[in-house]
Amino acid sequence: MKNILIIGAGKSSSALIKYLLDKSEEENLQLTIADISTKNALLLINNHKNAKAIEFDVFDEHHRKSEIRKTDIVISMLPARFHFEVAKDCIKFKKHMVTASYVSEKMKALDGDAKKNNLVFMNEIGLDPGLDHMSAMQVIDRIRDNNAKMLLFESFCGGLVAPESDTNLWNYKFTWNPRNVVLAGQGGAAMFIQEGTYKYIPYHKLFRRTEFLNINNEKFEAYANRDSLKYRSIYGLDNIPTMYRGTIRKVGFSRAWNIFVQLGMTDDSYTVENSSTMSYRDFVNLFLAYSPSDSVELKLRSYLKIDQDDIMWEKLVELDLFNPNKKIGLANATPAQMLQKILQDSWTLQKEDKDMIVMQHLFGYKIDGEKRQIESSLVVLGENQTYTAMAKTVGLPVAIAALKILKGEIKTAGVQIPILKEVYEPILKELENYGIKFTEKKVPYLGYNPNNVIG
Amino acid sequence: MKNILIIGAGKSSSALIKYLLDKSEEENLQLTIADISTKNALLLINNHKNAKAIEFDVFDEHHRKSEIRKTDIVISMLPARFHFEVAKDCIKFKKHMVTASYVSEKMKALDGDAKKNNLVFMNEIGLDPGLDHMSAMQVIDRIRDNNAKMLLFESFCGGLVAPESDTNLWNYKFTWNPRNVVLAGQGGAAMFIQEGTYKYIPYHKLFRRTEFLNINNEKFEAYANRDSLKYRSIYGLDNIPTMYRGTIRKVGFSRAWNIFVQLGMTDDSYTVENSSTMSYRDFVNLFLAYSPSDSVELKLRSYLKIDQDDIMWEKLVELDLFNPNKKIGLANATPAQMLQKILQDSWTLQKEDKDMIVMQHLFGYKIDGEKRQIESSLVVLGENQTYTAMAKTVGLPVAIAALKILKGEIKTAGVQIPILKEVYEPILKELENYGIKFTEKKVPYLGYNPNNVIG
Repeated sequence: MKNILIIGAGKSSSALIKYLLDKSEEENLQLTIADISTKNALLLINNHKNAKAIEFDVFDEHHRKSEIRKTDIVISMLPARFHFEVAKDCIKFKKHMVTASYVSEKMKALDGDAKKNNLVFMNEIGLDPGLDHMSAMQVIDRIRDNNAKMLLFESFCGGLVAPESDTNLWNYKFTWNPRNVVLAGQGGAAMFIQEGTYKYIPYHKLFRRTEFLNINNEKFEAYANRDSLKYRSIYGLDNIPTMYRGTIRKVGFSRAWNIFVQLGMTDDSYTVENSSTMSYRDFVNLFLAYSPSDSVELKLRSYLKIDQDDIMWEKLVELDLFNPNKKIGLANATPAQMLQKILQDSWTLQKEDKDMIVMQHLFGYKIDGEKRQIESSLVVLGENQTYTAMAKTVGLPVAIAALKILKGEIKTAGVQIPILKEVYEPILKELENYGIKFTEKKVPYLGYNPNNVIG
Repeated sequence: MKNILIIGAGKSSSALIKYLLDKSEEENLQLTIADISTKNALLLINNHKNAKAIEFDVFDEHHRKSEIRKTDIVISMLPARFHFEVAKDCIKFKKHMVTASYVSEKMKALDGDAKKNNLVFMNEIGLDPGLDHMSAMQVIDRIRDNNAKMLLFESFCGGLVAPESDTNLWNYKFTWNPRNVVLAGQGGAAMFIQEGTYKYIPYHKLFRRTEFLNINNEKFEAYANRDSLKYRSIYGLDNIPTMYRGTIRKVGFSRAWNIFVQLGMTDDSYTVENSSTMSYRDFVNLFLAYSPSDSVELKLRSYLKIDQDDIMWEKLVELDLFNPNKKIGLANATPAQMLQKILQDSWTLQKEDKDMIVMQHLFGYKIDGEKRQIESSLVVLGENQTYTAMAKTVGLPVAIAALKILKGEIKTAGVQIPILKEVYEPILKELENYGIKFTEKKVPYLGYNPNNVIG
């Protein structure tokens, strides 16, 4: 009997728990699902005999240590800032650990201890980061094994609504944490490199500098992620001339979202006076010049130069942004919190709504003097509101990795992310059984300067 | 014999030291001018028998304490973050203290100690903050003494070049710390209130939401300062419907400066790779989309929609921004540092250049059912590169205050700013002798909604 401790039974744990329960007979697994409340855990366990739910506070040191001591591997699905306490105990009691979060500096510092104790501390093994690393490294390693030279790597990922649930003008609903969507792109300029030229986009221009992409004959757009440059060293592509990572939206989303950015509605750095009693219309007016007589609508159109017949206007109206009667109802709120409230009225998933994950990588390379390009794409649809595409693509890689670590099939010790062949090959193969499979196409080399024009 | 310790002999200390030296015989003053190097202090003293220069490191606790113990009053012209060590010693040895800096939280916390020891800790008594407080409070107090109700307070200040030195298309040169000019407006949305309506302008729109003003029949523009709202309580105007503070520039500056903001050139939050070997032209290209053949010029025009015949374009050309040969020459520089380097080529004051300070307040009020408005304006011209308008308007209020505290004419104890009649009346009066005199005009009440239109 092998014991698995899963800390956190939130949205992203459903597919993870289901996978391990489905394997529990065959693999002799006993799951302990620990969360601050057992409510969601009990729903997900659904009386399965190989699992139990426990009430658990990660800051209760005594309880935390006693549970970690008893188990064989720990999966932490908590927010990233809570992993470190767990990780220290995993070192102490010599347990493997798996998370879907970015490796923090503190986590990285445990690498020596993990190696000394022959422990696998696997991080960034969800969707993004996770599936993106694995699917990219698989192709990059293959290209390099053929003695080809990488020229370009672009990678895009987005969480969207499934086509059947795509019912608003924005072609968007909140399929994950709404706050992250409102704050997306903030905290510094987006950085990347194209044909050897560094490029920096400030936040207020981010949603006007989108790139288009085609996935399964459908057109999408993407805006640049914060720091694409750091992936050069992570993927061993230090001298690659083009490296770009972006977030996917349906075409037209970014141009309309830019209105909120331009107005200042996504600002989370200050609170608005009287936010609680303010109407949606008052909220808009905060960001427009004072006038005793001009309407909020006309001031906004004029300020941002929105034409009479521009579809962007309809998108604003659809959100009921000019309603003088609907109240924000949040005290001491930041503009970002107020905007989130308004968007949640319109963009919250309905009971029957399904989500969709799209990912695409572009690999440009030179082999035998010839430039080639591979396009690798993934589309995953959610089944329902529990087994969403997001939960599957985040949870299944975590679950598969945990089981393979437990069985000794993944054994390279240390604090790591899934960029080793030993890790990504078997996981990507097994994910195919769950409909998570990339489609690869050879396409003409596009790059940004395919003919080496000297500008 | 009264001893005055002046810490810091930088640009802003020239007029301050001259004033005190000129009074030193009559008032029996002995000045000690302390700086990390005595070079500038010795120039300013010019062998005057009532002053000496000493080498002084504010973090040398022993030396600091011994100098403060010996003196009667301390004037700290150091950057604001260094005042606190000095202030604690002033409490310990029971000495008055004067600074031109904003009151920090730590400084404010010394209020009780200062009062207990009957010490005057006068802050924010330079130009802005300083002269603005005094000249505003003088009129506000007079209006309130007449039982009128304040409706509007707007206050503008700018450091510019004198008309005779106004020789470039931007009508601007660096008359003070260039870094502050490049970073101006950053760090959060600008906040103010107009006719009872809160308004917030994000940084990337700040230079497009200017207001015009007339001073001595010349037209200027102003962009909003960070936080105008806090001045409501400082001036005792908590319920005033309109409160706005802004920074003055010559007309057209802000629209052109906005180009830098839009591109992301004023960002100080990250360093650019290879900044040292980059040309001015490469710097511009960092913020434009990659193209193998399109010119930097055309990409910029197209991106920011700058017409062929727009004067803004000439302003960029004047800065030599598209030069492919001039190198930035700064390693690990932020965009803001790189931009500052380029601007300093063009905007550094030449030997014969003179500066100019402009300030204007608008006071709207209601008396006997009638709305009225007062406009109060100040223009100060620099004499040369030592006795600049900036040095005079910052240093003279500090010097006058210090002497009046020493003579017991200003005596209300505590950590304070110059908003008491006891303080501002005699100082404003004496400043007139030095050509620092506001011109007051009655003008029709303008406000933003003079006819009470209900929108």
